[in-house]
Amino acid sequence: MAADFAATRAMFQLPDGVIYLDGNSLGPLPRGAAERVAACITAEWGGMLITAWNRAGWIDLPRRLGDRIGRLIGAEPGTVVLGDTLSIKVYQALASALELRPGRRVILSDTGNFPSDLYMADGLVRTLGQGYELRTVAPEAVEAAITPDLAVLMLTEVDYRTGRRHDMVRLIAKAHDAGALVVWDLAHSAGAIEVDLAGAAADFAVGCTYKYLNSGPGGPAFIYVAPHLADRVRPALSGWLGHEAPFAFDLDYRPGTGIERMRVGTPPILQMAALDASLDIWDRVEMPDVRARSITLSEAFIQGVEAACPTLELASPRDPEARGSQVSFRHPEGYAIMQALIAAGVIGDFRAPDILRFGFTPLYTTMEEVEAAVGILAGIMATSAWDRAEFRTRAKVT
Amino acid sequence: MAADFAATRAMFQLPDGVIYLDGNSLGPLPRGAAERVAACITAEWGGMLITAWNRAGWIDLPRRLGDRIGRLIGAEPGTVVLGDTLSIKVYQALASALELRPGRRVILSDTGNFPSDLYMADGLVRTLGQGYELRTVAPEAVEAAITPDLAVLMLTEVDYRTGRRHDMVRLIAKAHDAGALVVWDLAHSAGAIEVDLAGAAADFAVGCTYKYLNSGPGGPAFIYVAPHLADRVRPALSGWLGHEAPFAFDLDYRPGTGIERMRVGTPPILQMAALDASLDIWDRVEMPDVRARSITLSEAFIQGVEAACPTLELASPRDPEARGSQVSFRHPEGYAIMQALIAAGVIGDFRAPDILRFGFTPLYTTMEEVEAAVGILAGIMATSAWDRAEFRTRAKVT
Repeated sequence: MAADFAATRAMFQLPDGVIYLDGNSLGPLPRGAAERVAACITAEWGGMLITAWNRAGWIDLPRRLGDRIGRLIGAEPGTVVLGDTLSIKVYQALASALELRPGRRVILSDTGNFPSDLYMADGLVRTLGQGYELRTVAPEAVEAAITPDLAVLMLTEVDYRTGRRHDMVRLIAKAHDAGALVVWDLAHSAGAIEVDLAGAAADFAVGCTYKYLNSGPGGPAFIYVAPHLADRVRPALSGWLGHEAPFAFDLDYRPGTGIERMRVGTPPILQMAALDASLDIWDRVEMPDVRARSITLSEAFIQGVEAACPTLELASPRDPEARGSQVSFRHPEGYAIMQALIAAGVIGDFRAPDILRFGFTPLYTTMEEVEAAVGILAGIMATSAWDRAEFRTRAKVT
Repeated sequence: MAADFAATRAMFQLPDGVIYLDGNSLGPLPRGAAERVAACITAEWGGMLITAWNRAGWIDLPRRLGDRIGRLIGAEPGTVVLGDTLSIKVYQALASALELRPGRRVILSDTGNFPSDLYMADGLVRTLGQGYELRTVAPEAVEAAITPDLAVLMLTEVDYRTGRRHDMVRLIAKAHDAGALVVWDLAHSAGAIEVDLAGAAADFAVGCTYKYLNSGPGGPAFIYVAPHLADRVRPALSGWLGHEAPFAFDLDYRPGTGIERMRVGTPPILQMAALDASLDIWDRVEMPDVRARSITLSEAFIQGVEAACPTLELASPRDPEARGSQVSFRHPEGYAIMQALIAAGVIGDFRAPDILRFGFTPLYTTMEEVEAAVGILAGIMATSAWDRAEFRTRAKVT
């Protein structure tokens, strides 16, 4: 049965007069989230107090939500757990992967990775010392740079600026052939494209929930560890809720079973309540339908913009299979153009130096909105001075 | 002007028929928190979408909340920031402190520390390798164990089981004399007792907000770094929001100014909204008044219990100056006794093997409740079999 995207759209609270093409940065509010969080606060926290950890099932939320997200990324049941931020989860996955490859000291990543992933890897490498190294190449050079000295390949599947998508299956196979493990950042994949972690023989994956998964500002991150690795890692971030028996309060750390050991501290229950409500919408759709609709919307946007705005240069791959669920265009005056778009009610975002980003999120974005956004963008480009020679010259002088 | 604790109590939603003496584990619901979070969800997330990061001031919340908490712990303005969980903040503080003491490789802690702090230190020591060591002694042996090989002394000021309090000023002075830095865990101090980080010449401190500060389940942690150290540390957990210019998306990490660099990933805004509302209550009181009232309540509880329940053994220091804002008693059948108390509407908690814990939280706990709790406990002890010889024997046999 085809997904009913009119029904899913009705499950969001969207402001009037706004076309929201920034769900790749912060997803909008699922109507159910406000109610769910209110119930969590008043009935659970207020009414049950400390006993809610068991009575309201708070303590199991990180695992329960993990399984719900796992369905969307092709993860086996019991292999995903929620908690912390994506940056912390990157550190945790990287440290674990490095420990599984003793004697190897190189992390390979690319310059298209989200900077925080590189920063966290840098911090870990500095902490480890002893010759550990973060090596960074251009995205298109990654495959050739997979050499037998690698410990870990760390990539974000979909580039946050351009939407360019790495070939997960191929790169995992190549890395495994070289004896390396792979850590995938799915920040722009989970809920955006089809991901099959189990089918791709993935080792580690991490991601955030506040973009396509609509969990709200600062919603928790997730981490996936392949079942055959999960009991072999000893987490660097060895917090009490990852202990085999957290409430025994032992002085010595003993890692919990499987993915449980990737838990660290007390989980953010209010944020998790919002995520839980958001996932009710995701339960109504299958990723292949979402992906197909995302391609339809983004192709229409590209065609419309290229026809109407010849000075905007497509920064995303033209082949929809080679990109995620966003489309980016380049323009030297990108920042000002985006400000004008936002003022006109079309919310995308800008990434320096010259990228205009637009996210396509079938759960709530309609074809009518895509067409209207193209029209508004075309109007801005036509009536403003962005492309007039004297404007460019002036901009360069000042 | 004396604090008006009747007024602060009225600002909490407390269930009928419950005497809540577990605010040292999870603080109750401030009435304002439900409203504040609802507004954050509906008006900010729902109405402003991505623009709320600036328009609603989300991006500054970690620092703004840090200053509000700083007032309660004697921290200078601009030295405290919110984020992550306490376990993560322990790791961050420890790694930073170790880096400031190159050539020294010993972390000293005690067996009264909260286990997660020891686990995180263990994980860091394992990650560092190269002879780094976590040394643990009994709480009363800490002072004598401060030797010139120490890099860092890591202590929780108030013992989570017994309420025993370390002498912060004295231990910092001793550690500094030995050339070591000190990391304090204030989980059971912030909002519980008077803390003067600046006056004590503290180096690092961390704490959580969901106990005495009533931020709700999984509320964010905080970290303090002394001003003269803050610009010298390079965080091991070097996330993008701790970068000098997060939205420049540079490939290389450059730490932000001062305490900003201790930020890591995207902050949990819903939890922070709840904390913000909770701190409105704290703005109405001064810590000396809270502390004086806490001592009055806990002294009354000790006297009442000792008079009525001779088989309960005080596990907390008798001198109120030597303990935090909780009182613990020991009994071999402690678990069952606590279950009976909870069933009778008095919520404390149990910590293995034999500790009954009771938190005293003047913002909402009244003297009448303390007296009623003593009466209920006395009734349970008098009418049940806990202290009869045959019960003890049977318990041992099974």
